[in-house]
Amino acid sequence: MPSLPDRLAGIVGAPHVLTDAGTLAGYLTDWTGRWTGAADAVVRPRTTDEVAAVVTLCAAEGISLCVQGGNTGLVGGSIPPAAGDAPTRLTILLSTARMTGLDDVDVIGRSVGAQAGATLDAVDRHAAAHGLRFGVDLAARESATAGGVVATNAGGIRMIRHGNTRSQVLGIEAVLADGRILRRWSPLIKDNVGYDLPGLLTGSEGTLAVITKVLFSLVTPPEATTVAVVALDRVAAATELIAAASRRGLVVEAAEIMTEAGVDLVHAHGARRPVAQPAPFEFVFEVSGAGAVDEELLAAIEGIDGVLDAVAEPGPAQALWAARENHTEAIARSTTTPVVKLDVSVPIRALPEAFDRLHAVPGDLGVECRPILFGHVGDGNIHANYLDVPAADVHRVTEAVFAVVTDLGGSISAEHGIGRAKAAWIRLGRSDVDIDLMRTLKTALDPHGLLNPGVLFG
Amino acid sequence: MPSLPDRLAGIVGAPHVLTDAGTLAGYLTDWTGRWTGAADAVVRPRTTDEVAAVVTLCAAEGISLCVQGGNTGLVGGSIPPAAGDAPTRLTILLSTARMTGLDDVDVIGRSVGAQAGATLDAVDRHAAAHGLRFGVDLAARESATAGGVVATNAGGIRMIRHGNTRSQVLGIEAVLADGRILRRWSPLIKDNVGYDLPGLLTGSEGTLAVITKVLFSLVTPPEATTVAVVALDRVAAATELIAAASRRGLVVEAAEIMTEAGVDLVHAHGARRPVAQPAPFEFVFEVSGAGAVDEELLAAIEGIDGVLDAVAEPGPAQALWAARENHTEAIARSTTTPVVKLDVSVPIRALPEAFDRLHAVPGDLGVECRPILFGHVGDGNIHANYLDVPAADVHRVTEAVFAVVTDLGGSISAEHGIGRAKAAWIRLGRSDVDIDLMRTLKTALDPHGLLNPGVLFG
Ligand SMILES: Cc1cc2nc3c(=O)[nH]c(=O)nc-3n(C[C@H](O)[C@H](O)[C@H](O)COP(=O)(O)OP(=O)(O)OC[C@H]3O[C@@H](n4cnc5c(N)ncnc54)[C@H](O)[C@@H]3O)c2cc1C
Ligand SMILES: Cc1cc2nc3c(=O)[nH]c(=O)nc-3n(C[C@H](O)[C@H](O)[C@H](O)COP(=O)(O)OP(=O)(O)OC[C@H]3O[C@@H](n4cnc5c(N)ncnc54)[C@H](O)[C@@H]3O)c2cc1C
Repeated sequence: MPSLPDRLAGIVGAPHVLTDAGTLAGYLTDWTGRWTGAADAVVRPRTTDEVAAVVTLCAAEGISLCVQGGNTGLVGGSIPPAAGDAPTRLTILLSTARMTGLDDVDVIGRSVGAQAGATLDAVDRHAAAHGLRFGVDLAARESATAGGVVATNAGGIRMIRHGNTRSQVLGIEAVLADGRILRRWSPLIKDNVGYDLPGLLTGSEGTLAVITKVLFSLVTPPEATTVAVVALDRVAAATELIAAASRRGLVVEAAEIMTEAGVDLVHAHGARRPVAQPAPFEFVFEVSGAGAVDEELLAAIEGIDGVLDAVAEPGPAQALWAARENHTEAIARSTTTPVVKLDVSVPIRALPEAFDRLHAVPGDLGVECRPILFGHVGDGNIHANYLDVPAADVHRVTEAVFAVVTDLGGSISAEHGIGRAKAAWIRLGRSDVDIDLMRTLKTALDPHGLLNPGVLFG
Repeated sequence: MPSLPDRLAGIVGAPHVLTDAGTLAGYLTDWTGRWTGAADAVVRPRTTDEVAAVVTLCAAEGISLCVQGGNTGLVGGSIPPAAGDAPTRLTILLSTARMTGLDDVDVIGRSVGAQAGATLDAVDRHAAAHGLRFGVDLAARESATAGGVVATNAGGIRMIRHGNTRSQVLGIEAVLADGRILRRWSPLIKDNVGYDLPGLLTGSEGTLAVITKVLFSLVTPPEATTVAVVALDRVAAATELIAAASRRGLVVEAAEIMTEAGVDLVHAHGARRPVAQPAPFEFVFEVSGAGAVDEELLAAIEGIDGVLDAVAEPGPAQALWAARENHTEAIARSTTTPVVKLDVSVPIRALPEAFDRLHAVPGDLGVECRPILFGHVGDGNIHANYLDVPAADVHRVTEAVFAVVTDLGGSISAEHGIGRAKAAWIRLGRSDVDIDLMRTLKTALDPHGLLNPGVLFG
């Protein structure tokens, strides 16, 4: 019997099967440095048929399979279980890094097919060459992949405008746990023939199937946008401004909030501050519309209590976006220990209270650490980061954050998913019947539990 | 052992169990008159717990259960199998007619909970009392229910603006086939904790669970809209006008096309024609935006080839909407035999060809009948109606329509679902693996096949 690497090499070619410990290490730690796993091989297929052959092999031999796209997910889902934790003797990490193909853009149907490993940036540049845009965007766009954003149902910067990733998925191609290829590939806006399988696979975090290709709908970017950075003394001013702008017929393209502490971290690395004075909150607000957008926007801003200052510029206005774009990276660079990163959401009405209470967590617990909160404020989504948390207190800080969020009727995962990081807390967000039904689906689609063991269900 | 009606009466009260043949008949024929079924009793629960008790009884005794909301679905899904066709000895029809409760509107979170039997009209009026709107709208709004639009993932008139029903569903409560109550009830915009169960139940046509309550997101209606009826000599002019208006920053609120033959049917029943002359196509186009919307709209119209005439008015402009609003009813009233009603979609680029080829079906087949096509043109959705088709030719006309649509890369069901009407053709739209996976889900959730037997899978 040939060895596992040899059998994989027979499918994808020897150069695309990695087993050297040093090379493997690059795949086995996540972006945040919090998760490290073990695998017997990394396999890098090029085609859907190769993926199907790899999965068929796993099914036949009872081998666990972890799927990895850009490895920018922040909940450990792209990392296999640690040595000794896997449910099977052998584990493969399947990387989609070589699956970067893009179909021709359908300009009239406004859609494009992308292989799972194509980066968001590549999809978007491909669309832009035809005057279109990919509706999903996030700061990790140069690494995060089509398959990754679909597997996590990513949110991101443009969600307030275009909806979540799920609502951009027209069609999907995926390899099921038994190696069969599912292909639901319809560019149609309306196609009510049976269950929403693309929607079910979207957000399934690699636990139900390996996504090999996605048919995305594309959007027409507005001819012109106006970007403002608005200095605020309270969070509520941001949500009021979003509502006021909408009432004036402006289209909200993005609405991102940051706090003074986070903005300071970015400026410590050099960028110029667009507003005159540091403020408790900086709000990056991008709008479009027919007519005199900048005037309408300034008029909307004028009516809002809590505005300290504002600067506006025609988009893309990279200088106004810089602090937000560099936020996650600046946080990562500002400390030498892993950041406690928790992506949570609350009802819009509870946002101001959530910011207050999440800022107060270290004080309440008597844990010395630095909270940096920012988020997609229009969606009620806060990225709660705590820097320099002593290792012994990580669990307490995490539980305190989840307690605040749960108390406010929020979710322990807004857009990053559950992965390994939050699997132990899934009951905070879902009832027993709900979890049981999810397990029923998992068992129906992956009866031997080979796809991403440990992700989602723990 | 008490009889079935007695046991049901023990759950919901005797007045809410119907067994009299005459009364039953009112529930057992569909809106189009094409489907008639049989049931041992109609049960009309009031609460989720009553539904759970009824389903538990069905599960224990192996009784089939058909779910009916407003009975306006156009594919026979709300009607149980005909006498002799049911897979079980006993069949119950569960009507949601008494489940009409509405929660208080959450004005800031822009959402509302509605029991499954609440009509679209009731949900919308409830929202309107708080300055909000329900994003799903269709001409059957006074009968069609919350549960029905969710079970069919209805499209409708506002889909071009707000997306399909699935994208308005924030939370769902449903009774599973074993009687357990699933409740995923989060008003959050972002909540990535596990699989999208609400999305899976949406569009499942009563085959996976009985939906008891839905948490809908609501939308803020525009302050002002402009409605135009545009007379056109070609279909392509409508899609070009939609694109031109979008490029000018106008927000498209609705885009509905009708043909001369259909408009004539409506006017035969009295309404006044808004444009000067009959035209091959009449296009109802509603837009909103910041600034001088009417001027922008007229400017957009001016640039389009194929425009014969146009009238515009501030919304709601009921007179301009009348021909479209009365279309389905006018068609039904214009003949004494059941209409062959086929709801199909094609890629936007194929719309003009689809209209031509669907108009030509009777001539091509040598079948004497009257084609009346209309539809949600922005979504590529055509309602193809054929009047006075001889009974012997119904099957041929249906197959010819599906052949055209399939050839153009379209779908045999755009928004009405598969129901009983199209179950025999599901393979035209889905691959073997796809159908097999759907059956796997059906079996996992409803192992004894008691929920809506004959719907979707035939
Ligand atoms: C700087 C930065 C900013 C970010 N901003 C945002 C943001 O604004 N919004 C947001 O939602 N997220 C954000 N993220 C998180 C991350 O970018 C997203 O979760 C992204 O979707 C992950 O894509 P990926 O290709 O890196 O996936 P990976 O990290 O490789 O994998 C993520 C999960 O998806 C699964 N998966 C990946 N590919 C496949 C496939 N082909 N088939 C099946 N399963 C697969 C993996 O198994 C894993 O469970 C950010 C991350 C960083 C580092
Ligand atoms: C005049 C007219 C205009 C229409 N226009 C449109 C349109 O523009 N767009 C569109 O999409 N449709 C349209 N329809 C079709 C119809 O209105 C929709 O399909 C609607 O969603 C059906 O709702 P209902 O409550 O009548 O459901 P029913 O007809 O009672 O049932 C439809 C299906 O849903 C299931 N179901 C109903 N309630 C539940 C529940 N609580 N739990 C589980 N399953 C359930 C039934 O079993 C059945 O399979 C139109 C119909 C008419 C008569």
